Amino acid sequence: MKPQIQRVGLISRTDWKEALDLSLKLIECLGRGGLQVLLEPELAKSIGREGLAKPVEKMNVDLVITVGGDGTILRTCLSLPKPEPPILSINLGVRGFLAEVEPDDAFKALDEYLSGRLAVERRPRLASFIGEERLPDALNEVFVTAGAPAKLLHVKVRKNGVEVDECLADGIIIASQVGSTGYSLSAGGPVLDPELEAFVLTPVCALVPFRPIVFPSKSVLTIELIRPSRALVVIDGHYQREIDLGGPPLIVTKSEREARFVQFKRDFYERLRSRFLFRGRKLNEA
Amino acid sequence: MKPQIQRVGLISRTDWKEALDLSLKLIECLGRGGLQVLLEPELAKSIGREGLAKPVEKMNVDLVITVGGDGTILRTCLSLPKPEPPILSINLGVRGFLAEVEPDDAFKALDEYLSGRLAVERRPRLASFIGEERLPDALNEVFVTAGAPAKLLHVKVRKNGVEVDECLADGIIIASQVGSTGYSLSAGGPVLDPELEAFVLTPVCALVPFRPIVFPSKSVLTIELIRPSRALVVIDGHYQREIDLGGPPLIVTKSEREARFVQFKRDFYERLRSRFLFRGRKLNEA
Amino acid sequence: MKPQIQRVGLISRTDWKEALDLSLKLIECLGRGGLQVLLEPELAKSIGREGLAKPVEKMNVDLVITVGGDGTILRTCLSLPKPEPPILSINLGVRGFLAEVEPDDAFKALDEYLSGRLAVERRPRLASFIGEERLPDALNEVFVTAGAPAKLLHVKVRKNGVEVDECLADGIIIASQVGSTGYSLSAGGPVLDPELEAFVLTPVCALVPFRPIVFPSKSVLTIELIRPSRALVVIDGHYQREIDLGGPPLIVTKSEREARFVQFKRDFYERLRSRFLFRGRKLNEA
Amino acid sequence: MKPQIQRVGLISRTDWKEALDLSLKLIECLGRGGLQVLLEPELAKSIGREGLAKPVEKMNVDLVITVGGDGTILRTCLSLPKPEPPILSINLGVRGFLAEVEPDDAFKALDEYLSGRLAVERRPRLASFIGEERLPDALNEVFVTAGAPAKLLHVKVRKNGVEVDECLADGIIIASQVGSTGYSLSAGGPVLDPELEAFVLTPVCALVPFRPIVFPSKSVLTIELIRPSRALVVIDGHYQREIDLGGPPLIVTKSEREARFVQFKRDFYERLRSRFLFRGRKLNEA
Repeated sequence: MKPQIQRVGLISRTDWKEALDLSLKLIECLGRGGLQVLLEPELAKSIGREGLAKPVEKMNVDLVITVGGDGTILRTCLSLPKPEPPILSINLGVRGFLAEVEPDDAFKALDEYLSGRLAVERRPRLASFIGEERLPDALNEVFVTAGAPAKLLHVKVRKNGVEVDECLADGIIIASQVGSTGYSLSAGGPVLDPELEAFVLTPVCALVPFRPIVFPSKSVLTIELIRPSRALVVIDGHYQREIDLGGPPLIVTKSEREARFVQFKRDFYERLRSRFLFRGRKLNEA
Repeated sequence: MKPQIQRVGLISRTDWKEALDLSLKLIECLGRGGLQVLLEPELAKSIGREGLAKPVEKMNVDLVITVGGDGTILRTCLSLPKPEPPILSINLGVRGFLAEVEPDDAFKALDEYLSGRLAVERRPRLASFIGEERLPDALNEVFVTAGAPAKLLHVKVRKNGVEVDECLADGIIIASQVGSTGYSLSAGGPVLDPELEAFVLTPVCALVPFRPIVFPSKSVLTIELIRPSRALVVIDGHYQREIDLGGPPLIVTKSEREARFVQFKRDFYERLRSRFLFRGRKLNEA
Repeated sequence: MKPQIQRVGLISRTDWKEALDLSLKLIECLGRGGLQVLLEPELAKSIGREGLAKPVEKMNVDLVITVGGDGTILRTCLSLPKPEPPILSINLGVRGFLAEVEPDDAFKALDEYLSGRLAVERRPRLASFIGEERLPDALNEVFVTAGAPAKLLHVKVRKNGVEVDECLADGIIIASQVGSTGYSLSAGGPVLDPELEAFVLTPVCALVPFRPIVFPSKSVLTIELIRPSRALVVIDGHYQREIDLGGPPLIVTKSEREARFVQFKRDFYERLRSRFLFRGRKLNEA
Repeated sequence: MKPQIQRVGLISRTDWKEALDLSLKLIECLGRGGLQVLLEPELAKSIGREGLAKPVEKMNVDLVITVGGDGTILRTCLSLPKPEPPILSINLGVRGFLAEVEPDDAFKALDEYLSGRLAVERRPRLASFIGEERLPDALNEVFVTAGAPAKLLHVKVRKNGVEVDECLADGIIIASQVGSTGYSLSAGGPVLDPELEAFVLTPVCALVPFRPIVFPSKSVLTIELIRPSRALVVIDGHYQREIDLGGPPLIVTKSEREARFVQFKRDFYERLRSRFLFRGRKLNEA
């Protein structure tokens, strides 16, 4: 089915010339196709198109294109307007585990999507709550840390109200299926198959042995702070929020809002294999 | 609901006096209750009750009682008659992660079960196939190894026919939810929550980085041998079967037959926490 | 040989009543013995003895007593006056891996030391340099981090000028023999035997596989920042110093100044075994 | 200094045509240079030169050339005659961490060595004893295992007679500096710098947490069997010897006999970096 696309939002890294060049070409290409283009303000400024600037959270668009690595996708997801448009992600980073389309395929992928020949893939996210307040959904992970280098975090973890265990560590990660190949993996967590409806709790540098635990995605996890008196919740590496000892605990569960990505090519395990080949590429591109 | 129990099978470690003593008391107690008792032949011989001997696989009983540690439960599960009776497991080992009932509670638990006051818990198992042949179901794990110390195994893993990755390691474990706290955990695998319908693939001493992967339990995994020319499949640490290069691959998926255990007391995470306290006990009881 | 002790410095946690009570008793005991006592200013204030206050770095004393856990010892070591007095450490924390003396033995240990019946043990430290500047010596570890949660650090490591490898991780630890049982252990590093003259480089949550490496203590390690533009050097969890991209690299090697501890009882492996028994104690005492 | 070379021993994999071809060319080249060549019997048979056959342990030669991977070097080292000749190793395996010379450089390296332009590098080995009996020295590692898949080993480890800890695991590795990049690394052990005089004790799949420990190479380790009643000592993956419960324990320390290798090119960390790039090559060459 051909998607009804009239307005497209464009978000890009602005610190790489390659990304800005590709963004300019995309703007031109979309314009030729009669589509209206909106730009994230920083990008608009970087390429002298301030007239097209619009904050991401106010972009009333039918499609969002990201140009950059996984970091660009993650921060875009944190501020998408509701209802959320699908994302077509173009990979300009080495760590492009989330990003679908290599730069050389950008125009082909755009064309195929506009013609209705590409599927949109749904990816689960994690919802987090502190008392009445709902934090932004996480595509990759919710990370709780004492917030200072080498400072120990001590929390009690409950699942559906029942104690799982206490954890003494640098921090604790709750990662979605998508996020299981990100920070959680570096901390020693397992990979979750894309068809598994689950999330994983992974400690970072546990002082006392505490193993990664995989929960069904419908589980409601409660993270209760024991020490220190203040800790930091970090979502997808970008959003930060403090929690306080004695205040309401952090609650994490599956979000009812999934992210939507235009699917171009590679299957999950093909990506995973190339993720481990990563070291072969030049490290300073990372 | 009160279970209809007329015949009870008893399986016990025979190398611990404590286990034999408890077995004798259980036989007496069951007899007083008018129940017929059958004994595993080795146990029957050890306590001079050869008249009650019956191989486990031929025990036509309504309940099986095991006296010992997890090893006793695992080997019992490998040879239960069909349809399988539920198991009431009495823990005489330090590693009693599976075993439900401490020795002091044995008679109380038996009494409560016979009165219909204890639930029977179902635990998923793994089915394994080599070509047309079906191997015994695994309660804990299916382990593939080159079969000689320090010899490298090289396999290709597929999920539902699609390549996951190749693995070069001492061996590879496919562990059920129950088994996720056993050998797989020692090899670096995650814990799977009891409500998660999944199994986990965990390499042992991978030469090339290969991370544990958690699959939905309906997945069909294929393990294809690449090297050496012959490898060993070990189920629950007891059953062994060779596979050959060029022969049919090993196929592992969820079994349609679940094991049934009389549930006495502790919840999963309480057990898990005490599992990590294990070191506190005397190691030579292990 | 009986040590010549006239002045004693006392440093204590001030947030535990138990520590303050023991400090008061120690002051009284030392006074009865005709010794002059100096107190860290915060302690002096907490117990109303401001007249005895003296900053640690200006304490011209023959012995320092610490009351608290390993954290108290580490921050004391960072600010000892030169030449450094030996430390008698009384353990009021659960994690007392460094601390020698249990509270009940405090007066016995003090008495034995003053009578010349206890040895003083030397423990190697790490020296760090940024250009011409020398940072405080580390008893446990030098930790380099991007300084923000979930932000990636990218450094190049050299040994005696020769490239070892690049490292992409949350951070990188260089731990002394003493520190090998601390933060480095939580990050996956090995234990170094007390007789081994070595230190260990351990990454924290490496994105790209990078294994802990053990170097002879005479090695000169250079940590050159590649990304981000600014990173943080944290010594023994207390001292912090920024380093900048393009500025002089961090250099770490064995310090010529060893720390000196009054040795009371337990040998290293006895401590190590009880370190792993730690989980058995109540976690909230940690 | 030009080495005095008259006789050369040649050992090669015989299951790869490429290795046999290279061996034939080496024989021809050495013959033209007026050197006498001796062949390992299996190689001699494979290439129809039975007249040159001589068991490795009886080769009275001035140089040994190995053609193959690390496995070929390891089994050669286990059976070298005394006094041991230096080894020139040509790498025909993917895992050539020990092997120095790539096939294309074989004749250049041989020529340079014979002309006295290549240094001979010494590499420490481990000596093992069971009671009065001395086992062959290990270049890589001494491995103790229960000897059956998934069977638990329980040992007590002492250093210079003092208890280190008990270990419950699949097995336990004592690896030399050279071996620290081999099996020990796969089991989670650290890398030891080539200038570090040390060896490392690494458990394989420890049931109870037991971390790798690095000891000075002069340490004398005692491994005392607790369970099962019989275990297997495996040296460098090739030599096997049983030990029995109640019999003399296994003793491991630095050997007074170092192995000698002709050094051609790459430094240790260059090799280590390419070791981690390994995954990029075709796995089935491994």
